[in-house]
Amino acid sequence: MDIIKPRTLSGFMELLPAKQARLETMMDILRRTYASYGFAALDTPAIEDAQILLAKGGGDTEKQIYRFQKGDSDLALRFDLTVPLAKYVALHYNDLAFPFRRYQISKVYRGERAQRGRFREFYQADIDIIGDGKLDILNEAEIPAIIYKVFKGFGLNRFQIRVNNRKILNGFYAMQDLAKKSGDIMRTVDKLDKIGPAKVKALLLSECALEEAQADEILKFIAITGTNAQVIEALEGYTGKNEIFDKGLEELKAVTANLAAFGVPEENFAVDLTIARGLDYYTGTVYETTLLDHPEIGSVCSGGRYDNLAGYYIDKALPGVGISIGLTRLFYVLDEQGLLNPQLPSAPADALVLPMTGDPAAAIALAEALRSNGVRVQLYGEQKKFKQKMSYADKLGVPFVVLLGEDEIAQGKCSVKNMATGEQLLLTAQEAAAHILKTLADTAGPVILEK
Amino acid sequence: MDIIKPRTLSGFMELLPAKQARLETMMDILRRTYASYGFAALDTPAIEDAQILLAKGGGDTEKQIYRFQKGDSDLALRFDLTVPLAKYVALHYNDLAFPFRRYQISKVYRGERAQRGRFREFYQADIDIIGDGKLDILNEAEIPAIIYKVFKGFGLNRFQIRVNNRKILNGFYAMQDLAKKSGDIMRTVDKLDKIGPAKVKALLLSECALEEAQADEILKFIAITGTNAQVIEALEGYTGKNEIFDKGLEELKAVTANLAAFGVPEENFAVDLTIARGLDYYTGTVYETTLLDHPEIGSVCSGGRYDNLAGYYIDKALPGVGISIGLTRLFYVLDEQGLLNPQLPSAPADALVLPMTGDPAAAIALAEALRSNGVRVQLYGEQKKFKQKMSYADKLGVPFVVLLGEDEIAQGKCSVKNMATGEQLLLTAQEAAAHILKTLADTAGPVILEK
Repeated sequence: MDIIKPRTLSGFMELLPAKQARLETMMDILRRTYASYGFAALDTPAIEDAQILLAKGGGDTEKQIYRFQKGDSDLALRFDLTVPLAKYVALHYNDLAFPFRRYQISKVYRGERAQRGRFREFYQADIDIIGDGKLDILNEAEIPAIIYKVFKGFGLNRFQIRVNNRKILNGFYAMQDLAKKSGDIMRTVDKLDKIGPAKVKALLLSECALEEAQADEILKFIAITGTNAQVIEALEGYTGKNEIFDKGLEELKAVTANLAAFGVPEENFAVDLTIARGLDYYTGTVYETTLLDHPEIGSVCSGGRYDNLAGYYIDKALPGVGISIGLTRLFYVLDEQGLLNPQLPSAPADALVLPMTGDPAAAIALAEALRSNGVRVQLYGEQKKFKQKMSYADKLGVPFVVLLGEDEIAQGKCSVKNMATGEQLLLTAQEAAAHILKTLADTAGPVILEK
Repeated sequence: MDIIKPRTLSGFMELLPAKQARLETMMDILRRTYASYGFAALDTPAIEDAQILLAKGGGDTEKQIYRFQKGDSDLALRFDLTVPLAKYVALHYNDLAFPFRRYQISKVYRGERAQRGRFREFYQADIDIIGDGKLDILNEAEIPAIIYKVFKGFGLNRFQIRVNNRKILNGFYAMQDLAKKSGDIMRTVDKLDKIGPAKVKALLLSECALEEAQADEILKFIAITGTNAQVIEALEGYTGKNEIFDKGLEELKAVTANLAAFGVPEENFAVDLTIARGLDYYTGTVYETTLLDHPEIGSVCSGGRYDNLAGYYIDKALPGVGISIGLTRLFYVLDEQGLLNPQLPSAPADALVLPMTGDPAAAIALAEALRSNGVRVQLYGEQKKFKQKMSYADKLGVPFVVLLGEDEIAQGKCSVKNMATGEQLLLTAQEAAAHILKTLADTAGPVILEK
């Protein structure tokens, strides 16, 4: 038979089992955390009608889209989870209870130029809360509080959710009579972290055609830093001049106050006036999340408040707030940085049962007994030498091997070997399950371990 | 803004939240059961190089494939999880420990003619065990034992895993000097359930060009039925004439004996000599699973033993055994038959916390306290009338509403209303969590409820 050399497409993540186990753990944490806040799991198709998916049209995204014909159909793979959500909410509007809260953890597709750390197929893990006509500001604090829980659940501590409010920015620019230029200005200001204030000022003068005094005013504004209380105090100095600004500050104060009520410590969130999120889509609170020791990778979780989720599909005002974790990229970066906890067992089983007799019936019964007590068990049925069996257990990285020979069967027990310590105990199935689970619980750690 | 009418492509399942919750429960059961048997989670890309995916080529499948160009690349969406597994094992051969056990629950794509109950995007939930050179017969009993656990976990009782062995069939046809025609014969015999023995005989004579005596011998053979012990006893009568037959019978006996050891009751599995699985791929034990009250839907879970997983990609003998549940179709059928348990709560939250005061801080703290005790909580922050809030709770189908007004706050308690019984209790957060979880546990049922 002719052999075709197997390969996986460039830009598509395909993990070996031990790493996949860690990614699965992160997905479990995401699902459990999102569910604990009352979000419904949603699963939309990966393929949509291209006309519908691209209703908004234009932009860089369109070039990256996987679009193709099948029969008469013009099809495209989803490039994010927001457009399919908009379609879903518009299509099923009459069947949904609003506020509608959903999470979706699914793959999306973008045919970007292949480069290290960029993926063409990647998981997004999104939550959104959609209101019908109105949506309370409380939701804008809850969303980052959930992200805080997720990241802490992963084992991360050195991260910061940065919060701003588009109304503050829009109001501020309106005060300076720069409302029409605000989009260009925000895009320029967004480069502050990368190019510094002097170059931002130069660009504001050259590309945005601002006057020197206007540019200085903007730089002074975005230079407002400090504790959240200090930033808010400084912003109070701008109130009374523009309604939108005042409304934005009121929202920002509500969000920061409620974030504290949700138990998010001040060290993990910061009001940051440079955050704008490029998209016009956002109209209120906006979020970015950075890993404090890895600012170079940019935001790993972003989102914000929008006023009109599904205007392309339905004649209803559907305001919402949402946030998205680029899970594949985050996982890739954490792995690259060596932050995946090597102590966390990554074998598919907690225990490998090795039958040492001809008839496997006793070993089958033992394995079933361990499973019914909550242990993940692989029964090893291959006819190999003992040494080969133990070397398989080593390669798998299984924490326990359970041996069952004639002696053990006669005593109604099994020999449980801890592969890390070498300790071997003669136990009943019940005792073995308890011993294995307790040992694993005692040595359990987070999936991410910061250095 | 021009509005584009939203729609979801025909042949693509998109569920409302309550149904999605039930599908998610089934996926959880699948993941937990597969993991409890030591299978590693695997996640391969949905897009593969078309040349590689279609290495085997030909067949009906190829016409159904979603294949398209992006830049210079000839791409295709996976149409099953077996070919990507073969690619994965060949590509990562040196990094895997064999036997390699993996599960994958992922969407696959087939551009079939759209018809009721047929899907173009659907979940398969596969397990496979791959050996390097050899693989013990014990695995061929473990696979259907796991499927038994999954189906029981769903709440199904009226199902039967039907087992046969291709060596028995091949050996039997060799005895009749019909080895060369065995493929055609098996395809004809496979129609027995649908068209009956008389028409099968007619086809054997006309299409397979058998002699009358040969056709009679075949009909006599496939008419062997009864308990598993009776079928095996009848098969013993054919031994001693063909080595392959004898080997197959030995395997079948081992599988049935071990299935019993795994705790699978006789009523849920049956030796059935008419099962062949059309593909030449299978070489030993083969499986089909039918819902006893719905034979018309055919097999909902099929698979078997194969000798050569990845011959197109690697020059290694990689025998394996695997089985696949067509989850989307199974879910569709169970729903159509009205078998989804309506008593099972399907709301995204166990409790809806309704703040009755201006400042949400106390309600936020209460919601967090309930969550940290394991309750899924939605905090309702909208400014609506009480009646509207309760009607939202009704529409969501949330089992408990937790009210927090000034009185409750003053007492350090909350009012917990059971939406099914109307009972309302004044409890601390701790007591409320315990009460909610206990009530839900007491009323919990399976996701599928047979009539």
